[in-house]
Amino acid sequence: MDITEIWEDLVWDRGGRIIYLILDGLGGIPHPDRGLTELQAAHTPNFDALAQASSCGLLEIVGPGITPGSGPGHLTLFGYDPLKYRIGRGVLSALGIDFDLQPGDVAARANFATLGPDGQVSDRRAGRIATNLNQRLTQKIRDRVSLDFEGTFFFETVSEHRAVLVLRGADLSGQVQDTDPQSPGIAPHPPKATATKGEKTARLVQSFLRQVTEVLADEHPANGVLLRGFERFDPLPSLYERFALKGVGIADYPMYRGVSRLLGMDVVPHPGGLEARFDTLTSIYGDEYSFYFIHVKKTDSLGEDADFDSKVAKLEQIDQLLPKITALNPEVLVVTADHSTPAVMGRHSWHPVPMMLKAQYARVDQVDRFDDYACAHGLLGRRPGTHLMGLALANAGRMQKYGA
Amino acid sequence: MDITEIWEDLVWDRGGRIIYLILDGLGGIPHPDRGLTELQAAHTPNFDALAQASSCGLLEIVGPGITPGSGPGHLTLFGYDPLKYRIGRGVLSALGIDFDLQPGDVAARANFATLGPDGQVSDRRAGRIATNLNQRLTQKIRDRVSLDFEGTFFFETVSEHRAVLVLRGADLSGQVQDTDPQSPGIAPHPPKATATKGEKTARLVQSFLRQVTEVLADEHPANGVLLRGFERFDPLPSLYERFALKGVGIADYPMYRGVSRLLGMDVVPHPGGLEARFDTLTSIYGDEYSFYFIHVKKTDSLGEDADFDSKVAKLEQIDQLLPKITALNPEVLVVTADHSTPAVMGRHSWHPVPMMLKAQYARVDQVDRFDDYACAHGLLGRRPGTHLMGLALANAGRMQKYGA
Repeated sequence: MDITEIWEDLVWDRGGRIIYLILDGLGGIPHPDRGLTELQAAHTPNFDALAQASSCGLLEIVGPGITPGSGPGHLTLFGYDPLKYRIGRGVLSALGIDFDLQPGDVAARANFATLGPDGQVSDRRAGRIATNLNQRLTQKIRDRVSLDFEGTFFFETVSEHRAVLVLRGADLSGQVQDTDPQSPGIAPHPPKATATKGEKTARLVQSFLRQVTEVLADEHPANGVLLRGFERFDPLPSLYERFALKGVGIADYPMYRGVSRLLGMDVVPHPGGLEARFDTLTSIYGDEYSFYFIHVKKTDSLGEDADFDSKVAKLEQIDQLLPKITALNPEVLVVTADHSTPAVMGRHSWHPVPMMLKAQYARVDQVDRFDDYACAHGLLGRRPGTHLMGLALANAGRMQKYGA
Repeated sequence: MDITEIWEDLVWDRGGRIIYLILDGLGGIPHPDRGLTELQAAHTPNFDALAQASSCGLLEIVGPGITPGSGPGHLTLFGYDPLKYRIGRGVLSALGIDFDLQPGDVAARANFATLGPDGQVSDRRAGRIATNLNQRLTQKIRDRVSLDFEGTFFFETVSEHRAVLVLRGADLSGQVQDTDPQSPGIAPHPPKATATKGEKTARLVQSFLRQVTEVLADEHPANGVLLRGFERFDPLPSLYERFALKGVGIADYPMYRGVSRLLGMDVVPHPGGLEARFDTLTSIYGDEYSFYFIHVKKTDSLGEDADFDSKVAKLEQIDQLLPKITALNPEVLVVTADHSTPAVMGRHSWHPVPMMLKAQYARVDQVDRFDDYACAHGLLGRRPGTHLMGLALANAGRMQKYGA
């Protein structure tokens, strides 16, 4: 029996408010020269003060040894076991650009790419073309490509080289393999069905890509499109349906706006910047919502850029903004991450992430710093990421007793 | 795969004796003025000495964020995952008054209550009437109420305002909703079936309550009966069937006598008091039983009364009695709880409970005090409550090797 389903039986729509401050890719490992992780190297007096008033621990997000993508990472934090609630990045990206995805739609992430004369990929991101070039090419594709079926397709700019393809019609399936070969020097894969159900969709994608290659033949550097993460959109039960939480997402980056919408949260209009997100939280904090998700992307991006010092600086900047949240004195405040992105590795990793939870009845422990090592000594211990939502609900007084 | 089922395959009826000292609601959180939990505030030299000779840890009883009722809490400690073995308080209460419940019986908890002239509940407990008044009213109900079906009903005094209704006959079901509205100022709910299967039982309960209201019309303050926790009795596999343990329960409070009987343990006659329970353990300790469950209720009741100081005093009193158990030098001695009841909260809570296990081959750790914080540093770590029985069986030499 999945413990998150027991919570569903026990929750009621009363009790306190919960704020999640999610610092994407927060977790790190020590820099070989400095012997400190990003959080250890950062001067973060506000985080440390919060840790001193919190229950601390480590979250192993998806499972031992698993490096989470951002989608599964976030689902986990919201109490949706990603091994059960599967959702592809294509669907998340479409939701994240405020695209009105319908049940049954199939979405895929698209990259404008540079293909060489031999048909091999020479740059998977076409030199990260500007967004306005992306928009022009997208319009060209919409104007000149047509698919022969009882349905329709949408091709939408995300930003820079990124776009989304959505197919809408009967009997579509996400069971189509990526055409993006992930490495340059290889030709794009054909869009093969991975199961019989996916054959109709694969044929449509094949036709789409054949036409796109003609339409973009004279363009440079973006003369091709790569597709990955085909996924049919089957909406998940909402955060309110499952946990009686009226949620709101405060995020700038499409993916996290998408995750919020996927779980039935309201999503505020693009706040437009880090400090603006904190100020938005302050302005909407009140009776309308019981769950507030505020997302910080840069900690992850800088980790992926292998830029240890900038990640440290970013953490110090966020630390200075933290009082904007603690001033609200929410019944439950959680600070944690969807996964680690150690700058030393320059990519997502499997390392558990530090977390702290402040609430009236949380057992405050001896942890006096918020970092990857100190939190290991916290009273919440090291536990699966899905546990977080249950702890937040309990501490908010939002769950009844189990049995008599 | 449920690990407790693996134990079932590995146990044999040889090895040492296990004593569980269960201090109901033991776990706490720090008092805001004192900065100490109940256990930390209590002077408990005997518990602390035992901790110094034990493996210590924390048990998260049902699961993260889950606040256990006493029934599920105890099932967990005995190795019965309460998410799998579900049992209602009606059945437990009936078993707890030594009522000879038969498979297929439906039991519900009953309260004598005061109903106002408008039919609304004015006191759910009828001012906690004396037990002898309860007995007189119970006899009146037995004499004057009759149900028109191929079966019979039993109405039994528990104590004060509490009683139990048992229906015995074919095709009965526990799928009937509570009539107890839980709050005064509301009329009792009708005993509606929550599924088609429950309709026959609901009709019988309706007839029963209609007659009771007439029979008690002239009584004051107990002029009504509220029912809750309808449950069909489907016996669980016994502690002997599952774990080859011949168990005995030493408890005064009905619920815990009920749990013991539910798992096929013998239950000693009411010992009648805290010290008497410890002396009873001494007197029956020997070859007849391999598993001894001794239960202390007051730690929970005082926590529910939000009486921090009295809970502390009770812990000190129990500490003085502990040598009566340690003198027996059992092969395995466990001290723990079924859930936390922090006096600061005045109710059950989700916080993990401290536990210690003393046995010849247990790895003794550095924990030198028995309390909610110290045990977090124990070698057994923080783990699900169901793990306890496996550790006890192993330490008693009652499990064989898994595989060759």
